[in-house]
Amino acid sequence: MSATGTLQVIGLGPGDPELMTLKAARLIAEASVVAFFARRDRVGHARSIAGDRLRPDATLLRFEYPFTTEMPLSDPRYAEQMTAFYEDCSAEIANHLDRGRDVSLLCEGDPFFYGSAMYLFDRLRERYPHRAVPGVTGMSGCWTAAALPITHGDDVLSVLPGTLSEDALVERLLHCDAAVIMKVGRNLPKIRRALERARLLDRAIYAERGTQDKQRLLALRDTDGHDAPYFSMILVPGRQNPR
Amino acid sequence: MSATGTLQVIGLGPGDPELMTLKAARLIAEASVVAFFARRDRVGHARSIAGDRLRPDATLLRFEYPFTTEMPLSDPRYAEQMTAFYEDCSAEIANHLDRGRDVSLLCEGDPFFYGSAMYLFDRLRERYPHRAVPGVTGMSGCWTAAALPITHGDDVLSVLPGTLSEDALVERLLHCDAAVIMKVGRNLPKIRRALERARLLDRAIYAERGTQDKQRLLALRDTDGHDAPYFSMILVPGRQNPR
Ligand SMILES: C[S@@+](CC[C@H](N)C(=O)[O-])C[C@H]1O[C@@H](n2cnc3c(N)ncnc32)[C@H](O)[C@@H]1O
Ligand SMILES: C[S@@+](CC[C@H](N)C(=O)[O-])C[C@H]1O[C@@H](n2cnc3c(N)ncnc32)[C@H](O)[C@@H]1O
Repeated sequence: MSATGTLQVIGLGPGDPELMTLKAARLIAEASVVAFFARRDRVGHARSIAGDRLRPDATLLRFEYPFTTEMPLSDPRYAEQMTAFYEDCSAEIANHLDRGRDVSLLCEGDPFFYGSAMYLFDRLRERYPHRAVPGVTGMSGCWTAAALPITHGDDVLSVLPGTLSEDALVERLLHCDAAVIMKVGRNLPKIRRALERARLLDRAIYAERGTQDKQRLLALRDTDGHDAPYFSMILVPGRQNPR
Repeated sequence: MSATGTLQVIGLGPGDPELMTLKAARLIAEASVVAFFARRDRVGHARSIAGDRLRPDATLLRFEYPFTTEMPLSDPRYAEQMTAFYEDCSAEIANHLDRGRDVSLLCEGDPFFYGSAMYLFDRLRERYPHRAVPGVTGMSGCWTAAALPITHGDDVLSVLPGTLSEDALVERLLHCDAAVIMKVGRNLPKIRRALERARLLDRAIYAERGTQDKQRLLALRDTDGHDAPYFSMILVPGRQNPR
């Protein structure tokens, strides 16, 4: 019996292809089976960061999310369909690993920081050898692009998903010095209200597509505040310019 | 009058030189004036990650911290001496920038995430053109090395400096799902007590020199718990294996 392949989960950074690590660049140039997630009608963000570094003869496993628009996380059909989807993707990867082929699962940002790749890693890790390559997170990409040191000294940083309730956001915002709010999208008006209640609106920066084409960085106050694309986040820096 | 140089603050990642970004590798290979911090009798961690990628004819500005052992942050002499030190370093960099030379300030991990480089950036940003290059953080390096997805779904992550008081640590730990505690060193026994009080000790992983030579990863329970080197942190993952 031949040995099984290794699952490699590879972070590709926040968007600018030059912000991938040397290790990620080497591994994807060597990879013969490459898996990635994509939304319907899209190339797939991680796939597009990898660009033409992929081998032309690589086998591509394109995993298309079952939804075009975001369904509320609270909808029970959401959890059900996502579970079935992740099971299918894992089975497809396992099929290659069983034949002794390594599979490289591409991921935007850092793979173990809110990455979808974790749901496949969690399912496969017990059965196959694995390795993970960290990446520059979207938030690091955004705060350096905004020239915004986020934490100094003993600042506490909290990373909050914008999917939390308004009250939960306010509560958490009151217990930190600096904050990053991810998963903004249609949660933007709620997030804005939470920042207002926590008296942090004036410090909040809106970062859209950090380090990517069409990057936008502005004070949250200056956005129209209705809606935001998937690749957007809010940055609230901690104390500024301590000496 | 000739134009002033540009200050480039460059993150080099968690320690493994292959985890620097393509952009960092390119910029340091081009740099003619390179600045970095080092503790007394040490090479300087960022300097050692850059290794022989630096040009042999580069001018090196080595900024040696004024302390050999850590002085409590609360000691007023600490703040005073550090302020004077940062002023001196900034003046030395400004001297090159004024002559039209670009200066590349190297930084471990991501520069704007608790990095000392920010104290120089904060002092120079108004007067000189600048650019910052994000890096893989130490925490991303540690949690991927430990094969430990840190946050899923709507987990809240808090990053806590180990310099906080025991009560402050407990309080913050009770308001998050996942936590990273940085700046461990001699704060280890206090951190351990705080995790015990927050009932998180069993989930806590101790990560020393993540991605570097002599990396150590183990359950915090299994450490002797007295002291830790500078490059160590505690990871408390959020919910595990959601389906
Ligand atoms: C499922 S999470 C994945 C995070 C990713 N693994 C990372 O390390 O950044 C997706 C969220 O990350 C944020 N994000 C990631 N990259 C971004 C970028 N370049 N600009 C703005 N937001 C980004 C957005 O808030 C988005 O909703
Ligand atoms: C002054 S902060 C600098 C953080 C850095 N800018 C980053 O992005 O990770 C230094 C602290 O980072 C943590 N750290 C950084 N790199 C690490 C590594 N490779 N392994 C363990 N801890 C690390 C330690 O807790 C250390 O006390």
